Amino acid sequence: MKKMVYTPGPSQLYFTAEEHLKQALRDNIPAISHRSRAFQSLFQEATESIRNLLEIPEDFSIYFTGSATEIWDRLIENCVTHESCHLVNGAFSKRFGEQARALGRETHVWEVPVGTAHPIEQMLMPESCELIALTHNETSTGVSMQMEDFSKIRAAFPDQLIAIDAVSSLPYPQFDWSTLDSTYFSVQKGFGLPAGLGVWVANERCHEKAQERRDAGYSIGSYHNLFSLREKAQKNQTPETPNVLGIYLLTKVAQDMLGKGMDMIRRETNYKAAFLYGCFERWNGFQPFVSEPEHRSKTVIVVETVQPSAEWVQKLSDKGFVVGQGYGSLKDHQLRIANFPTHSKESVELLADTIEALL
Amino acid sequence: MKKMVYTPGPSQLYFTAEEHLKQALRDNIPAISHRSRAFQSLFQEATESIRNLLEIPEDFSIYFTGSATEIWDRLIENCVTHESCHLVNGAFSKRFGEQARALGRETHVWEVPVGTAHPIEQMLMPESCELIALTHNETSTGVSMQMEDFSKIRAAFPDQLIAIDAVSSLPYPQFDWSTLDSTYFSVQKGFGLPAGLGVWVANERCHEKAQERRDAGYSIGSYHNLFSLREKAQKNQTPETPNVLGIYLLTKVAQDMLGKGMDMIRRETNYKAAFLYGCFERWNGFQPFVSEPEHRSKTVIVVETVQPSAEWVQKLSDKGFVVGQGYGSLKDHQLRIANFPTHSKESVELLADTIEALL
Repeated sequence: MKKMVYTPGPSQLYFTAEEHLKQALRDNIPAISHRSRAFQSLFQEATESIRNLLEIPEDFSIYFTGSATEIWDRLIENCVTHESCHLVNGAFSKRFGEQARALGRETHVWEVPVGTAHPIEQMLMPESCELIALTHNETSTGVSMQMEDFSKIRAAFPDQLIAIDAVSSLPYPQFDWSTLDSTYFSVQKGFGLPAGLGVWVANERCHEKAQERRDAGYSIGSYHNLFSLREKAQKNQTPETPNVLGIYLLTKVAQDMLGKGMDMIRRETNYKAAFLYGCFERWNGFQPFVSEPEHRSKTVIVVETVQPSAEWVQKLSDKGFVVGQGYGSLKDHQLRIANFPTHSKESVELLADTIEALL
Repeated sequence: MKKMVYTPGPSQLYFTAEEHLKQALRDNIPAISHRSRAFQSLFQEATESIRNLLEIPEDFSIYFTGSATEIWDRLIENCVTHESCHLVNGAFSKRFGEQARALGRETHVWEVPVGTAHPIEQMLMPESCELIALTHNETSTGVSMQMEDFSKIRAAFPDQLIAIDAVSSLPYPQFDWSTLDSTYFSVQKGFGLPAGLGVWVANERCHEKAQERRDAGYSIGSYHNLFSLREKAQKNQTPETPNVLGIYLLTKVAQDMLGKGMDMIRRETNYKAAFLYGCFERWNGFQPFVSEPEHRSKTVIVVETVQPSAEWVQKLSDKGFVVGQGYGSLKDHQLRIANFPTHSKESVELLADTIEALL
């Protein structure tokens, strides 16, 4: 039995990905040189498709990395000389701060209990902070920030760079790009692709900051600093031999999503999220982990379980559904269920029926 | 017409790779979580297969990165505080030095003309150098170092760490592991796999140096420093979500190569290299770029062309063979032809017949 995978990343492949992978083999995509014209066309098609899909303004550049984890390093190396500010409410927002400290930066961490969102009106931060690290969707807890949060932070701290982790939410969120300077994601979550590719979106302000740092004699890194990336991107290339197959698949899936329309994908995501949260509120033995409905993630549904979560994982696996346990110390009494574009309404309803039958 | 690809990386997929990719889809490998037991089994199988294939002693650890270019950064970040020494004879050995300088290190570069090898007996280097960067196979020029070169350098400079770039030669070379502290490769060359995965092999001395640096208060990087990598590797995991599909394919192809036997693969490589060099010496209009036969690469055959190389690339492409042009400023009058394990004797002979018919 081939199981349907609802873990929050890696997750089920986007439903068209397998066909694209087979076409890639027929077209010998893995063998094309990253310095060939064929690759340049692919790079251009890839960045144009991502730009169209996410409505990214021309002021932002699009770069490829090995992972979103790598992008944490690159943001710090390029854009922070001394201090960064991190809004932490789970394992991944916390880890970005840890990486910044490992790179020798001072961090100002505002941490709230897991499962809750930051009361943005109360945000305080030294003016000396150079970058504010926000997490649109904390994959470990299923807490989402709202679009208004980003506007408020931008208004309160206009001099800082704002970087938004959208690893487990894109392509769903429709950002107001004037409220941020950088965002990033990896392809094994909402895009439903094999892991091993990160996408970094960064505007001119990020490049200016990197330039300032370089002019002042600081190292901004090497092959993946913003200028190495830009110099190659202007030729539709990458500094290193990249994950060519991953870039190809991302291009094709972004085009499929464009064909379907992001409005439709967002409506379906909203419907499936409301449906699942409704079920878990109604059923005995479950409740949504995030108590404030407006901060519940639409793409990573986290619920508390009365029974040990491992039992639910096993029972659902026996029925052909792979769901995730809670993250870290939350593992034993939480489930995490991805609600990505590849998860159809029908399959989500089937998952719910299956859980209901097991209650 | 599906063409046979002889570019020196990305290159033709290993002949079993496509079947493994299809099996990976049937087994839903791209959807497995990197924190699952299934991934831990895969990681263990991967590192064991690579260790067996390359006869890597237990004293060396095996780690995965996004690319070999990334490994240049990681070697410097972990193992060099002030100074590194680089033996340069082409574009890639030069670039490692550039990356070290971009990371703020002082470099001592011993550069010889492209197409020649370093006369190792004459090697001089300040004792203050912490790491010696060598290139077994300079992909841009087709110059190879010999195994004796590594022993001589080890004997002359026992206190330095020795890192060998084997990006475009492994799995072919049979290293004497006592002569080196680290080596690395990427999978899109000799292993014939889709690009997007680097493999870093590093011994205890590298870890000790990183420990010293960390104890002295230097940053050794974050998620991909040797201790983050080791901590996760001991649990058969990676710090970030890695290229799971790439690791799976590498495992399967390494096992196929083990099944065939490295002795056989090395014998075939030697035969095909001797055959091609012999042809190019005999034919009018060509000659091997590297004049000293003992320094001619067995895996990347570089030849000078009297006719513009672009004409040969086009003529051969029309016949179904994709070969590479020279690298950088050598582009217009050189061809680079990969001689990797996936290139069968028969296909190499067919390529030669095709060239001969076009003379």
